[in-house]
Amino acid sequence: MNRLGIIDIGSNSVRLVIVDVDNEGYFSIINEFKETVRLGDTDKNSVLKPERVQKALYTLQTFKTICEAVRADRIICVATAAVRKAPNQQEFVDTVRKNTGIDVDVLQGSKEAIFAYYGVIHSMNEKKGLIMDIGGGSTELVHFEDHMVKNSISLPFGSIDLAKKFDVSGSVSYENAQKLKEFLFAQFDNVPWLKKLKDLPLIGVGGTIRTIGKIDKKFRQYPLNLAHNYKIHSQNVHNIYSIVKEKPAEKRTKIKGLSKDRTDIFFGACAAVWHLLEYCSIKNVIVSGSGIREGLIYDFIEKNHRPIENVLDFSIENIMAKFKVDKQHAYQVLKLSSSMYSQLGDLLKIPKSAENVLKTAAMLHDSGINISYYDHNSHSFYMILNSGINGLTHREIVMSAFAASLHRHKKLKLDWKEYSQILSKDDADSIIKISLLLRLSESFDTCMDNFIEDVTCEFDNEKAVINLIAPKKPNVEINRALYAADVFEKLTNRKLVIQ
Amino acid sequence: MNRLGIIDIGSNSVRLVIVDVDNEGYFSIINEFKETVRLGDTDKNSVLKPERVQKALYTLQTFKTICEAVRADRIICVATAAVRKAPNQQEFVDTVRKNTGIDVDVLQGSKEAIFAYYGVIHSMNEKKGLIMDIGGGSTELVHFEDHMVKNSISLPFGSIDLAKKFDVSGSVSYENAQKLKEFLFAQFDNVPWLKKLKDLPLIGVGGTIRTIGKIDKKFRQYPLNLAHNYKIHSQNVHNIYSIVKEKPAEKRTKIKGLSKDRTDIFFGACAAVWHLLEYCSIKNVIVSGSGIREGLIYDFIEKNHRPIENVLDFSIENIMAKFKVDKQHAYQVLKLSSSMYSQLGDLLKIPKSAENVLKTAAMLHDSGINISYYDHNSHSFYMILNSGINGLTHREIVMSAFAASLHRHKKLKLDWKEYSQILSKDDADSIIKISLLLRLSESFDTCMDNFIEDVTCEFDNEKAVINLIAPKKPNVEINRALYAADVFEKLTNRKLVIQ
Repeated sequence: MNRLGIIDIGSNSVRLVIVDVDNEGYFSIINEFKETVRLGDTDKNSVLKPERVQKALYTLQTFKTICEAVRADRIICVATAAVRKAPNQQEFVDTVRKNTGIDVDVLQGSKEAIFAYYGVIHSMNEKKGLIMDIGGGSTELVHFEDHMVKNSISLPFGSIDLAKKFDVSGSVSYENAQKLKEFLFAQFDNVPWLKKLKDLPLIGVGGTIRTIGKIDKKFRQYPLNLAHNYKIHSQNVHNIYSIVKEKPAEKRTKIKGLSKDRTDIFFGACAAVWHLLEYCSIKNVIVSGSGIREGLIYDFIEKNHRPIENVLDFSIENIMAKFKVDKQHAYQVLKLSSSMYSQLGDLLKIPKSAENVLKTAAMLHDSGINISYYDHNSHSFYMILNSGINGLTHREIVMSAFAASLHRHKKLKLDWKEYSQILSKDDADSIIKISLLLRLSESFDTCMDNFIEDVTCEFDNEKAVINLIAPKKPNVEINRALYAADVFEKLTNRKLVIQ
Repeated sequence: MNRLGIIDIGSNSVRLVIVDVDNEGYFSIINEFKETVRLGDTDKNSVLKPERVQKALYTLQTFKTICEAVRADRIICVATAAVRKAPNQQEFVDTVRKNTGIDVDVLQGSKEAIFAYYGVIHSMNEKKGLIMDIGGGSTELVHFEDHMVKNSISLPFGSIDLAKKFDVSGSVSYENAQKLKEFLFAQFDNVPWLKKLKDLPLIGVGGTIRTIGKIDKKFRQYPLNLAHNYKIHSQNVHNIYSIVKEKPAEKRTKIKGLSKDRTDIFFGACAAVWHLLEYCSIKNVIVSGSGIREGLIYDFIEKNHRPIENVLDFSIENIMAKFKVDKQHAYQVLKLSSSMYSQLGDLLKIPKSAENVLKTAAMLHDSGINISYYDHNSHSFYMILNSGINGLTHREIVMSAFAASLHRHKKLKLDWKEYSQILSKDDADSIIKISLLLRLSESFDTCMDNFIEDVTCEFDNEKAVINLIAPKKPNVEINRALYAADVFEKLTNRKLVIQ
């Protein structure tokens, strides 16, 4: 196992993430620290101020002590815009090395963009998009399609610069908002490929977009407490931009979702998001909880352990490793339920698009055992909802959680009212059918010995027949599975025969 | 690590529990199987019926296969009343050995009572009590005080016998209920020590009492889904007894909490509980979710690994081992918060009885990191509530969960309305103060390096001073801790000084 300390010296904050990476490349974040240092608060010539450098040194010394205390094998430390732009960059790097022994890697803008891209591409399933990573002192834009970076650029402004330059850290005047817009449009005009983008979602990285997501969720009374992969319509970003613009500074603190240590730098950065949406006519925004720090982790894993080919598969395996799920049993349940899903598709009418839900629920249906065996299906619900699965939409996460939680219920009743913003009646229907497949598959692996080699299914207007292929007659498995015959009949109007 | 398969051949059901015991003696149940075999449904002379034996063999063969599939190192198999009372006992044991290779240990009544006692005594903090374990074919009573068995007996009737003998499996006539009462009182009269018991709680083991608990919870709309350590007033047991007595058989299935496969045998066993409460003038009943199977696990651990001296400590350590909690940090937070708790007791006014809450919250405040680092304090809440901690009352469990969940909140607001059946306003107050101590202690271990050796505290009418004892000036720790100064001042009316 490797224990890494990843330090990100940003323009606003300095952060430390402690992450364990096991021998197979699965990782878990075990601690995180953040200190608001504001190195980006420089003098006019971008020179780092001595008092800020002092605070950075003090923070880095603390982080070094923490890394030593938790026995980190390695420290990876990067610095972004504030240090990159500073004429006294080399002095800073030398001072840090001398005082703390930490080697700072000052990332070029293009490199910073690439790490943000790594963070995004390994944590969501979007085929194409425009990534916007707003930091304190720079903004990275990356256009990607089919796992390829098409274009990228690092623009030399961030939340701290904008707030200062356009005097929008307190109340915002009409003139300043207008000047800010003109500045941003001029900056975007300098990026020739931006104009040509069409039909892409904006994928937002960093605190500004996470905050926009939080505010939007509070407005909507969204039922999930998940930041990553939250989708916002651009109209709602505009609403938030307008509300903040019109509120006097002292009333901003009342906006639910906007944290106090961000009120001064929020408006400028929020304007940058909104004007980019406007500039590119983008309709959909997706919040990415995963950015440069996660990009550094994925980069480490790909360089030292394994390629990450499928976001969802890697994420599920990662969670299984952490929760000590019985892999053999999970894969057997997946194999059998997938086989029934494709053979009985026309009868069950579960949409093809539910494949990832079936996969997640099958693999993690027993994950709750790690909390307690008793009532473990309810715990699996909690685990699937909260363990940060990547590569699924929120709707798919909720569906998977429900399907897993029902896998041991005799009566398949689903109370999804709380999630009616996310799930439709049809989704609820699919969940029930998927959980039926899980229950049958779990019965077919009663002895947890992969005894059933395969299943073949056929059906007519009266009955559905599931044939189990096994070296001996699987009486135990058939008996268990037949407990679900009632439910099967109710859902499909067909008698269930298992042989 | 040892993986055990524990098989319990009861008179009603045959069960298999798969349990992992690590090298330090910490265990987790990873799977459980149950088949209703009803060996206790014997002929008049207690001879096991061939069809029941057949079903038992079939079940045991399945369980053997499961044990092999999950690579259990060892199978521990016990049989209770039905087999114990059967004249064809030896034939049964031989047949099982021949057909499955499993060695059945037929427990004498006194041994069965002892294992139930082990299950109880290692999972709750009661100093004295009368344990009642109602099985399908026998009922064990154990009187204990100060971790010593004072008296025990195995009575030769259980839920199956009573239902049959007094014809109370369907609707119950007045005469039959009366005859049942007379029979039970006569049985109790035969146990001389029973009459002498005073001021003891009844600790109930087995499905009947768990079911009584479930029904009572539904009546009360109890907010916790925890079976173990649930407390019922004897008057409520009488209510449940009366309701079941008066309901015609077909309406019993409507009683929420009473499962279908128990409706026929429930009344007789419920009568046994109620009449024992009546006979001994017992006011309080405590449900034990832990019985003979857990007794066998604890017996194994004590024989092969370690003594279990303190129920709560063992349980917390067990959970910490499972959730990979950073022990050094947890113990440091416990040490510092306990020290402040005792020194600032008169100022904070947290009752002395909250010591176990402080301990649990301190040790498990980071347990949620196992689910996901993000929002881990909320996950710790879920973990503490659901991981089956032993040795705490429900009230203490909820208090610990809340205290842990608040350890990272800047504003200490507590929404405890949902738990108002369990918590009082004073409890809510204690929770907030305990979480303040946790927050301070966590700050004092910012670098997770046990840098602070100890704390000394003093206070007057204006201020409270916390002196940190450390080899160097702990600037980082003091700065972090001072974030909590506002809250401290609000709660105590004293300025907080840390030096």
